[in-house]
Amino acid sequence: MRFTKMHGIGNDYVYVNCLEEKVEDPGRVAKLVSDRHFGIGSDGLILIKPSKNADFEMDMYNADGSRGAMCGNGIRCVAKYVYDYGLTQKTNISIDTKSGVKYLELTIDNGKVSLVKVNMGKPILKASQIPIHSDREQVIRQPIDVEGREYYITGVSMGNPHAVVYMDDIKNLEIERIGPAFEHHPAFPDRINTEFVHVLDRSTVEMRVWERGSGETLACGTGACAVAVASIVNGYTDGEVTVKLLGGDLRVFWDRKEDLVYMTGPAAIVFEGEILL
Amino acid sequence: MRFTKMHGIGNDYVYVNCLEEKVEDPGRVAKLVSDRHFGIGSDGLILIKPSKNADFEMDMYNADGSRGAMCGNGIRCVAKYVYDYGLTQKTNISIDTKSGVKYLELTIDNGKVSLVKVNMGKPILKASQIPIHSDREQVIRQPIDVEGREYYITGVSMGNPHAVVYMDDIKNLEIERIGPAFEHHPAFPDRINTEFVHVLDRSTVEMRVWERGSGETLACGTGACAVAVASIVNGYTDGEVTVKLLGGDLRVFWDRKEDLVYMTGPAAIVFEGEILL
Repeated sequence: MRFTKMHGIGNDYVYVNCLEEKVEDPGRVAKLVSDRHFGIGSDGLILIKPSKNADFEMDMYNADGSRGAMCGNGIRCVAKYVYDYGLTQKTNISIDTKSGVKYLELTIDNGKVSLVKVNMGKPILKASQIPIHSDREQVIRQPIDVEGREYYITGVSMGNPHAVVYMDDIKNLEIERIGPAFEHHPAFPDRINTEFVHVLDRSTVEMRVWERGSGETLACGTGACAVAVASIVNGYTDGEVTVKLLGGDLRVFWDRKEDLVYMTGPAAIVFEGEILL
Repeated sequence: MRFTKMHGIGNDYVYVNCLEEKVEDPGRVAKLVSDRHFGIGSDGLILIKPSKNADFEMDMYNADGSRGAMCGNGIRCVAKYVYDYGLTQKTNISIDTKSGVKYLELTIDNGKVSLVKVNMGKPILKASQIPIHSDREQVIRQPIDVEGREYYITGVSMGNPHAVVYMDDIKNLEIERIGPAFEHHPAFPDRINTEFVHVLDRSTVEMRVWERGSGETLACGTGACAVAVASIVNGYTDGEVTVKLLGGDLRVFWDRKEDLVYMTGPAAIVFEGEILL
């Protein structure tokens, strides 16, 4: 199987062009290739396929072999793949995912994609739809007791649930201890992704993320969008926010008129390879 | 840079044929390729070079960019590489390393290397040469207090220092806690690699290893040799021992007449790739 290893600010997948390759039993292949010691090593497998509803389909599998729905960092890499390898000449493309068709705008430098802007859809602030158990309709800077300490959370869903917590110091945060305590807190019936955020100025924040089921990761695209929305509703930032994650920066713009969130960030090809399965 | 990703029971390196490729600043390249998210992902980089003293030279670099001396799992992969890619037709080869020239015997199945036997040299049992602080000349089943609990250790150097500890249950061992306590114990002036071993029968043991500077790993070739030697001197096993590690099995034979340790194990090619540096 020929593949390309790519990453979006450190969120790395094995990408396969299924217009040419056929991958049988992709869940099994995802588990195998994701293992660093015995396979390739990645956060999962993304198959690029033809689509009836869009220019391409992104069919993604997590490292444990389960099917993934959508990944903001992954879809930017799909866009770079199809343009840089000449599968399309368009700079506005549509990609079908299990979370619906997504629309992307490519920035080209020297004939290659440097940045990709993704329409990440409408943010959901309604507590019951995130879901977060609350006696309020929205969870904005609401206190919550986690391990005997009071934190203030803002709840946002970008298709998956996020709790955003502001603090002065995220560098010395014991995320391995506090992350799981948020994840499994009874207020979150579907568990939760938690972003720990430090506001730098009115257009810049830095964050660390604890992803449900994965632990701390270098980058989470939906998390960065949730953080931007939360920072705007809390009045900490204006409408466009640079979100600094461990793996790199994303720019997030919340178009309040359309109520749509746009995320812009880089995508990188690391290497190409061939593996016998 | 064209490369091949290989592993010996889970100990994985990026291998480059430097009879054809030229790698500038290999320490920097090792750091870069070893990172899984932004590079290839590996335990380090191994350059296969021509040699004046032997058939080939193995020039190895750890994931942090430092120079490595010798790796029992890595050198088996070098042997498979040079035979499978047709750089040699010999089945008895010599490979120069920073720890001296090593001699290897290849087992061929269907034209490819399946197993490699490596002469790992003389074991050192003398405490001062391992080094371990002790009032005895050899450290064989000697008590040591680690975090308030008494353990019995056997000390062996295979060019690097090992403390071997026998116990009934290694599956539920809290190695993340106890491994560092051994590593930094004042009895070991150069720190120590610690093997936690359960004897299964007179020719089979299972082990977990805490490597100084690396933590728990899937496989440690010199550790398996040290464990076989320790098991023989303690009278637990006979002269040939199958050592079961997390990443797979190694067979170790201690030739008492020559006082040489031979390790036999597999080597595997996982994938081939090309990366722009």
